[in-house]
Amino acid sequence: MRDLFLIGIGSGDPEHLTLAAVRRLREADLVLIPRKGAEKADLAGLRRAIRDAHAPGIATAEFDLPRRDAARPDYRAGVDAWHAEIAAAWQAALLPHPEARRIALLVWGDPSLYDSTPRIARLAGGFRVTVVPGLTAPQLLTAGHAIPLNAVGAPVLVTTGRRLRDEGWPADAPDTVVVMLDGDCVFQGLDPADVSIWWGAFLGMPEQILRAGPLATAGPEIVALRAEARARHGWIMDTYILRRGADRDA
Amino acid sequence: MRDLFLIGIGSGDPEHLTLAAVRRLREADLVLIPRKGAEKADLAGLRRAIRDAHAPGIATAEFDLPRRDAARPDYRAGVDAWHAEIAAAWQAALLPHPEARRIALLVWGDPSLYDSTPRIARLAGGFRVTVVPGLTAPQLLTAGHAIPLNAVGAPVLVTTGRRLRDEGWPADAPDTVVVMLDGDCVFQGLDPADVSIWWGAFLGMPEQILRAGPLATAGPEIVALRAEARARHGWIMDTYILRRGADRDA
Repeated sequence: MRDLFLIGIGSGDPEHLTLAAVRRLREADLVLIPRKGAEKADLAGLRRAIRDAHAPGIATAEFDLPRRDAARPDYRAGVDAWHAEIAAAWQAALLPHPEARRIALLVWGDPSLYDSTPRIARLAGGFRVTVVPGLTAPQLLTAGHAIPLNAVGAPVLVTTGRRLRDEGWPADAPDTVVVMLDGDCVFQGLDPADVSIWWGAFLGMPEQILRAGPLATAGPEIVALRAEARARHGWIMDTYILRRGADRDA
Repeated sequence: MRDLFLIGIGSGDPEHLTLAAVRRLREADLVLIPRKGAEKADLAGLRRAIRDAHAPGIATAEFDLPRRDAARPDYRAGVDAWHAEIAAAWQAALLPHPEARRIALLVWGDPSLYDSTPRIARLAGGFRVTVVPGLTAPQLLTAGHAIPLNAVGAPVLVTTGRRLRDEGWPADAPDTVVVMLDGDCVFQGLDPADVSIWWGAFLGMPEQILRAGPLATAGPEIVALRAEARARHGWIMDTYILRRGADRDA
């Protein structure tokens, strides 16, 4: 059985890797690198840079990441079909490398958080999977703002832009919410009274942008900044934390 | 103004440090090491081991971490008083080292998650704070079990044992819950029907223990395992994930 190392690499700074991640990468004999299309070419570039910095001699197999059919009406069925296609793409990319016994896959962020790599590995089958955690965007966001994620002893909800748009922010939900995968600044649909936002894009990269403040004033600033940065770079990756109530920076 | 580097170190394995954490530690000219009393001596020992491995020449200042007065009826006021005492203990420990301009504090896990170091740094004042994120217990737990934290597109609630005990697990809360700071296995108070648990103790350490399964059968096993391990080691640090519904390992 082949080993598959799912190695979290953080979000763009090669120094986000842990010492364990570097060791596992060096133990691998093949790195599998997904190509996400021209607009995100820098992400494949970062993976190559990490390989070159830490394991320059290692073989690589690149493959084009299938695109999810966003037009499918059933979101979950669409995701399942997409994951099966990705598993097939891994297998096809590995076909010319039967000698490779330890495959490394460099996963943006952490393989456990809004990333489907462990699930795809199970679908693909035939691998002994080792997960090496990496820093997540919310961790880099709180670090960038030098804030704690949770108020003292209080809970935190981690959710997606889609959920926040569809379900709002109920009164009995936690007062701190981490929002990921939001391409539409859905915080614009919330009542901003007594809500603060901590936002960050390109976390850990030279292009990093951070903004924080009351949602009423910082929200529109962030919408404009995000649009401008996205236009300038051709892509964007961002996340944010919302907190309501008086204890907003506690 | 002095620099204070709050460096997340993960949970017990020196290889949990990121490359950025190692670099910051080497840039410091003093490491501040809290002593937590005899029963947790190994945590101060780990901090010393990390300093010895990566920055052996660096000066250290050790201090006894004040204990929180758990008997105070107002939890939040008790925590505030405790944080003020810790800030005073930092200042006292630094008093003999006026020459140290860059102070490193090695923070278990990540400084943002159920850790009060950024808040205490603000109370202490007089520092330019840089946060260097580290791996959290939930990340090491999902990695150990090779599972994703969230179901596809679904939210996650991060909470404490105290909250889960007092508030239960409402039907409209997320179906995945991460429970931290639970010294009492409060999952025993939940209806176990259709709930799964992924549990881990001493994550990343040689003593690591992992267990997972349906709460109805794995729950009692974990209670027994935890009691036995705690008695044997004299202390324990653990965390767990609960998931309900059919999609439990998706």
